[in-house]
Amino acid sequence: MSEIRYNFLKDTYTIISVERSKRPHDFTISIYEEETTDISKCPFEYGNEDKTPPEIFSIRPDGSPPNTPGWLVRVFPNKYPALRIENQPIYEGYHMFDKIGGFGAHEVIVETPDHFKHTQDFEEKDFINMFIAFRERIKSLYQDLRIKYVHVFKNHGKEAGKSLVHSHSQLIALPIIPKQQLTMIKQTKKYYQQKGRCYLCDEIKTEINLAERVVYENEDFVSYCPYASLYPFEVKIAPKFHSHDFTTITDEKLKTLADVLKFTVRKLHKTLINPPFNMILHTAPPYREDYIDKTIYEHLDKHFHWHIDILPRITTLAGFELGTDYYINPTMPEEAARFLREVV
Amino acid sequence: MSEIRYNFLKDTYTIISVERSKRPHDFTISIYEEETTDISKCPFEYGNEDKTPPEIFSIRPDGSPPNTPGWLVRVFPNKYPALRIENQPIYEGYHMFDKIGGFGAHEVIVETPDHFKHTQDFEEKDFINMFIAFRERIKSLYQDLRIKYVHVFKNHGKEAGKSLVHSHSQLIALPIIPKQQLTMIKQTKKYYQQKGRCYLCDEIKTEINLAERVVYENEDFVSYCPYASLYPFEVKIAPKFHSHDFTTITDEKLKTLADVLKFTVRKLHKTLINPPFNMILHTAPPYREDYIDKTIYEHLDKHFHWHIDILPRITTLAGFELGTDYYINPTMPEEAARFLREVV
Repeated sequence: MSEIRYNFLKDTYTIISVERSKRPHDFTISIYEEETTDISKCPFEYGNEDKTPPEIFSIRPDGSPPNTPGWLVRVFPNKYPALRIENQPIYEGYHMFDKIGGFGAHEVIVETPDHFKHTQDFEEKDFINMFIAFRERIKSLYQDLRIKYVHVFKNHGKEAGKSLVHSHSQLIALPIIPKQQLTMIKQTKKYYQQKGRCYLCDEIKTEINLAERVVYENEDFVSYCPYASLYPFEVKIAPKFHSHDFTTITDEKLKTLADVLKFTVRKLHKTLINPPFNMILHTAPPYREDYIDKTIYEHLDKHFHWHIDILPRITTLAGFELGTDYYINPTMPEEAARFLREVV
Repeated sequence: MSEIRYNFLKDTYTIISVERSKRPHDFTISIYEEETTDISKCPFEYGNEDKTPPEIFSIRPDGSPPNTPGWLVRVFPNKYPALRIENQPIYEGYHMFDKIGGFGAHEVIVETPDHFKHTQDFEEKDFINMFIAFRERIKSLYQDLRIKYVHVFKNHGKEAGKSLVHSHSQLIALPIIPKQQLTMIKQTKKYYQQKGRCYLCDEIKTEINLAERVVYENEDFVSYCPYASLYPFEVKIAPKFHSHDFTTITDEKLKTLADVLKFTVRKLHKTLINPPFNMILHTAPPYREDYIDKTIYEHLDKHFHWHIDILPRITTLAGFELGTDYYINPTMPEEAARFLREVV
């Protein structure tokens, strides 16, 4: 059984994942993206639905039955899950150390049946289907009160951790709120307590006014290179209206979100020539009766503002970043935004 | 001029480094380790001392003059520094954002004149020379009261961010204490306030007693795979005696430290077949009169315990790690330690 172990010195958790257990010789074979020229072997193709665990969610306009072809988006459990819903999130001690049982969920979202369609090729409708899957899976998982946060992300390119060529996203449902989201909650709460305003609403207004770091904008959403971007060509996509919870997004707004995503991803693709990147959804965690520190949820709807980070992986995180949790970014965000705005 | 920009949402700093400025086309050429077959072009070779900025420190048993051959270890400023000593660490606002001037130092420590000698080939004397350079450079830099922390690290292998083949370490002196070190200070202070003891002294005692995660041990130092290792085959090396400040290490203890380093690095090298890794020195920051929160230094000598992290880079940090600041580690630390102990 996997365990979630607490690292006291670094104040973080690590999932010791026995399902994905690796011995030394497993590492000596480089874990590169499989160049699946033989599509018939790809588990994400039409007709290969039996090569994955049974599906949990799909969009099937033709009314086809589950686990058969006909889907536009298909969600199923990861074959090698980091966490399992069958485990319990039991808090335990081990000598002086602390751990939590390896409870959670780990799902794969295949956003298109087309093996050769990558994020930069997605049309609005593909992004809309992807976001519908995200929204519905998050809402469904939050019905399990043991789940404190659902982390949704996409790895694009092998340097960003993608292991299968066919485009897909992942979600990991956790029995604890992640450290990065806790940090955001604490920071935006501090701002709200001082000013009575949402930090990200203010940041978005400032960025739109200054215009120097904006990449693309429509009536509902904006994409921009944040002032203190940690990664070169990092882009944040956020609603211009205040909303703490991504799952409340309407089908209407999914269209304008898809518009910003499509333009932003294509601009990154053209400017950096298909860069690897991680796409991350940040949204507010749901209220939980048993959370030890309940101040987490105080005014959360007022000061948390959901958003998407796109983190290009064109530099290597090295001894500076891994040893300080600070970053070196060799590209001025203003310059990155200008390149992205100007590319056609 | 470089700037240190504050990322409010993630509560961290990023150095926007103009000296290393990169435009889109710079990224499309993969930044791989240069396979310098032509040693005459390597700036770290005997006779090429004029290809680097003038040296700051060296060990020269033959009494040879600076910037000539004869050195065993040689330290000089990075040709493309992330931060510069000529800048000032001025705190400034920019609209709603915060930044600090790009003050600091960025130095390169070449630990051996031998182009083909890598960390796994180092003898005790090579590690001793390396650690003497670390100790003397940190002590010297701390005489500048604007420097709040000197971060020392080594990138081994291109996947760990190494850009030149010839073995070297780096140090970056910062006008602020890094987030990771601040976290360690806060965590160990909390433990000290509860128990009156040093956390790492307790952890080391526990690890030695349990023995299941210990890799190697001598009279003064121990290396072990931490209970909540963030990376597979991660190893921590720490003194068994309490010491908060690495720079106080005696020449006598450098010998036993070099012994543990040599065995541990060789075991990693053999078990994982030359894995890329980052080596990071964690030591207490010096007292500073102008630090805004002075409680940082209260009892710091009692609860901070210097140590070295070796982080093998055999998995890819992806959307989970970068988006949560939690980790997935596919190897049980107990199993990793057993492999490392047993390899000959």
